[in-house]
Amino acid sequence: MRGDNLREKLAHIVEHWSPQTVATVNDYDVRLAKVHGEFVRHTHQDSDEFFLVLDGELTIRMDAGDVVLGPGEIYVVPRGTPHQPSAATETSIMLVEPREVVNTGDAGGELTAIRDDI
Amino acid sequence: MRGDNLREKLAHIVEHWSPQTVATVNDYDVRLAKVHGEFVRHTHQDSDEFFLVLDGELTIRMDAGDVVLGPGEIYVVPRGTPHQPSAATETSIMLVEPREVVNTGDAGGELTAIRDDI
Repeated sequence: MRGDNLREKLAHIVEHWSPQTVATVNDYDVRLAKVHGEFVRHTHQDSDEFFLVLDGELTIRMDAGDVVLGPGEIYVVPRGTPHQPSAATETSIMLVEPREVVNTGDAGGELTAIRDDI
Repeated sequence: MRGDNLREKLAHIVEHWSPQTVATVNDYDVRLAKVHGEFVRHTHQDSDEFFLVLDGELTIRMDAGDVVLGPGEIYVVPRGTPHQPSAATETSIMLVEPREVVNTGDAGGELTAIRDDI
């Protein structure tokens, strides 16, 4: 058999900023998201957050400066660090974080996504 | 600033079957490895193991059958499942697993790698 193909999974994602779980590793999720525009600034007080850009370009704005990620580039936002992701064009990302982590962290609001898988 | 580039990290890896940690997410590692040939059959009794192929093709032999992964394909070997990874050509993979997981699991032997990062 074949494994799951990330591009095929991404093809099923329509909504921006709404991560979908594509694999679980014990109590951690591997999630895919399509993003475009500005996300809400937020903090995950209890967890680091791993980003890998698959396509496009992601900017993570933090107080210490911006981190820019192109395809194949990774960054871990340390726990407790306010960050605002943004993407000038539609961008596909992969996230790794504990399954209980919510996308908007402590900010909440209308962009808060329900944990879901595809 | 830019994030870390997986291809640049891979360029520093010479030894096959020796995963290098490129990021940590709380107590989990994101690891890169170059693999070629047959690895030892082994089991991680206490952890799932996430595989993403970046380049090449990985075959994971299990009692239930083989899983074949090409670039952009993922698979999670469930905890307690004996598996033997193999690659007919040099293949680059990304792993996600708890930092205490050892590459050879319960098999041990000369292919056992010390946890290291690049």
